[in-house]
Amino acid sequence: MRTPIKVGIEALYVYVPYYYVDNAALEVYTKAGTKHFTEGLGIKKFGIPSPDEDPASMAATAASRLMDKCSIAPKHIFRIDTATESSLDNSRALVSDVVGMLEQKYGVGSFSHVLGYEQKFACVSGLERVLDSSAWCAAGWNDTTAKYAIVLATDHAKYNLNSAAEPTQGAAAAAMLIGANPKLLEIVPGVRGSALRYENMDFKKPLGRKKEDIPIVDGPRSIVSYLAEMEKAWRAFRFAAVNTQFIVPKQGECVLDHVDKLVYHNPYEKMVMSAFVALLIQEWKSLPRWREVTDVIGNRAPETGADCLQYYGDEAFSDFRRQFVKTDIYHKEFNQKVGSSLLAPGLVGDPFTASIFIGIDSMFENDKDDLTSKNVVLCGYGSGSHAVIQAFTVPKGYEKIKKHMDLMQRLENRRELSMDEYRRIHEGKIAPQDWPGDGRNRFQLRSIEAGRTKKKGNREYSYAD
Amino acid sequence: MRTPIKVGIEALYVYVPYYYVDNAALEVYTKAGTKHFTEGLGIKKFGIPSPDEDPASMAATAASRLMDKCSIAPKHIFRIDTATESSLDNSRALVSDVVGMLEQKYGVGSFSHVLGYEQKFACVSGLERVLDSSAWCAAGWNDTTAKYAIVLATDHAKYNLNSAAEPTQGAAAAAMLIGANPKLLEIVPGVRGSALRYENMDFKKPLGRKKEDIPIVDGPRSIVSYLAEMEKAWRAFRFAAVNTQFIVPKQGECVLDHVDKLVYHNPYEKMVMSAFVALLIQEWKSLPRWREVTDVIGNRAPETGADCLQYYGDEAFSDFRRQFVKTDIYHKEFNQKVGSSLLAPGLVGDPFTASIFIGIDSMFENDKDDLTSKNVVLCGYGSGSHAVIQAFTVPKGYEKIKKHMDLMQRLENRRELSMDEYRRIHEGKIAPQDWPGDGRNRFQLRSIEAGRTKKKGNREYSYAD
Repeated sequence: MRTPIKVGIEALYVYVPYYYVDNAALEVYTKAGTKHFTEGLGIKKFGIPSPDEDPASMAATAASRLMDKCSIAPKHIFRIDTATESSLDNSRALVSDVVGMLEQKYGVGSFSHVLGYEQKFACVSGLERVLDSSAWCAAGWNDTTAKYAIVLATDHAKYNLNSAAEPTQGAAAAAMLIGANPKLLEIVPGVRGSALRYENMDFKKPLGRKKEDIPIVDGPRSIVSYLAEMEKAWRAFRFAAVNTQFIVPKQGECVLDHVDKLVYHNPYEKMVMSAFVALLIQEWKSLPRWREVTDVIGNRAPETGADCLQYYGDEAFSDFRRQFVKTDIYHKEFNQKVGSSLLAPGLVGDPFTASIFIGIDSMFENDKDDLTSKNVVLCGYGSGSHAVIQAFTVPKGYEKIKKHMDLMQRLENRRELSMDEYRRIHEGKIAPQDWPGDGRNRFQLRSIEAGRTKKKGNREYSYAD
Repeated sequence: MRTPIKVGIEALYVYVPYYYVDNAALEVYTKAGTKHFTEGLGIKKFGIPSPDEDPASMAATAASRLMDKCSIAPKHIFRIDTATESSLDNSRALVSDVVGMLEQKYGVGSFSHVLGYEQKFACVSGLERVLDSSAWCAAGWNDTTAKYAIVLATDHAKYNLNSAAEPTQGAAAAAMLIGANPKLLEIVPGVRGSALRYENMDFKKPLGRKKEDIPIVDGPRSIVSYLAEMEKAWRAFRFAAVNTQFIVPKQGECVLDHVDKLVYHNPYEKMVMSAFVALLIQEWKSLPRWREVTDVIGNRAPETGADCLQYYGDEAFSDFRRQFVKTDIYHKEFNQKVGSSLLAPGLVGDPFTASIFIGIDSMFENDKDDLTSKNVVLCGYGSGSHAVIQAFTVPKGYEKIKKHMDLMQRLENRRELSMDEYRRIHEGKIAPQDWPGDGRNRFQLRSIEAGRTKKKGNREYSYAD
């Protein structure tokens, strides 16, 4: 038996754009009805990249701020992973642009030695990249000097104006420092579950369309896909947790009783609530306490078929969910285990791959509990369709990292866009070069080559400090 | 000190389309001049996917044939990685389509437990995927039953008719079985070198263009980028090989003297020859034997600046290369160390991510040496720009795997397309459903949804046995 090398997330930095749309204003503007977006969906504000930023510049900014916060030099890094579903090229990897920007700041050739990756699997690829880069450290394949990986999850979620998905837009880049001294979240090897299913109707961005940056979404299909795969992944996770004896439930207990915190991929709060309802049905349905729930509600949840999409589309589940989420027993459990991870996402919107990491940051900044030695289960999901659930623990001394986390404060200090500004930016009516530089210590997109030359599509970036 | 778990490639299957274009015919048709394509570039034939196949169907076919050859069931697999720069969607991962097809053959839900990945970094991402999936095995993160990963490298390289790059097209999918009993190629941990450089002029497929499947290429820039990054990666590789004592050169020797075989990413043979010239300059220039070379040629290669692009663009290098490749001393070394890996690629063209694996297959099928315990150095390259060099060794008993490799035979049994057929297929004038099924035990693309519905872009596939 080998002693495993500890690996995981040493530090985390989330970059969010300075500009946001207030969903309360959008509710009025689109006549969507009172609080339909802000409370119905649970997204109060969503971030909008200014015309002089894109997924590559956001990722480079996040990476550079993470490195500076952690006093990490390029020579300490052995690989940079980028996860995105907002890629700009079907051959060149986004990480090349990121390295180009970083070298403007850290020196030409300073990242020449790193391995570079770009990965795609809708919203789940950021978590997958954390696992892959951690695996190198767990195998001892990293170098004694260049011992860290950086994972960048960057996305800009853009939907059509006046569409149902408009209030769920968002943009952000999360940067994670991965290494063998995980001061924030340590991977529990083998305590993982996943589910993968071929799905081509939920959410996609087929190439060859005029508006390629706008996904084609079937909302209801997308929801039931999320719930069904998450359910199956949890079954696998539960088996692994018990099998490895990471969790040993006693009589009358379930695995979830021994999970301290869960952080979900969070397209909007209501989605996470539905997933947690499904989880509680699964975990509690054979326990004595389930009678308490059904007694209160006076309604039974359907107990079989939860690994099928149809289960979640049926009225029986919807009815039960609507009633269950109003109960104290649900609220107490949800707030205790999930609540702290929801605050930042509700102010950022859904930046796809970055979403789950915003949830992690939110948990650390907002949770009132001492998280030392607590377990945190990350529940990642990507359309198409793939759920990945992985257990982590919080090491002693995590507060030293936590105290430098300032996302909540930065979210307070953003500027709201007027509806007119927002819509002009959305429609691409403001060129990068026409947007005033704001000198906020970030990488800026300066121009996109439009001419019919071999430079077509090239993006020029520079660092504004 | 931990005893490393052995990991690497257990088996390899390369799928190539049944149809090909003969470059000798294309030379005549395009009036390119005698043997300009076949001998100048070194590509005799190139594969063309029929209208009823695409990168996803090729990958699924390769995976299914690999599984059947190795008696691997879905339950034995813990992850499937796909590497491509011919992706069909900017959000959905190609691996979802692959799993959808495989489940048509192996049963619905049979791949539900696997982790799925799609990666992009031009042509180098296949090799990167081999390393990432191997790292999980080296870390002991795979399962006792689901202990294998499958890496799929699939691409269709398509250039404009009558362009300079037309004769370098190609299509293929390579499937590698990755595990802890590597019967074909075992990774030598830490004996690796890489070089990464921001580059946006060599080769790209920016999104938002009308012909997105056709790359924008600057040929000369692409060549010097390949050579400069490969040079830098070799320097890092050489340092690692000596530092880990994998190779200990004696007085008058170089690291290359202890390398048995090299397999390069092979866009066309002449590119590999140039890379080998640059390698020999680097390795031999301070050894006594270098005088023999320069005596024969009566010309000195430039000895400094080989880590810069300009070095390879200068006439001095080109002059030396042209003379050097005519010498016996070059030929002997090149044929001994690289020659056997070039035969299949010269008959397939350049299928991007799959290219290096076709080279590996070619080496095993064609090399006359007993490869037992020999080292094989894989030299991967991706535009944009990234070179990754990794050492492997050939385990005892590799012949048992080798004897089932039949790519060379399948390459003999293809059908040549007439110029008219080729050009009609290239221009997309034949729909998938109008191509006759050929029952050759592969997955077929049946249709692509064209309507303006939420199904737009959806591809239907089926298995034809």
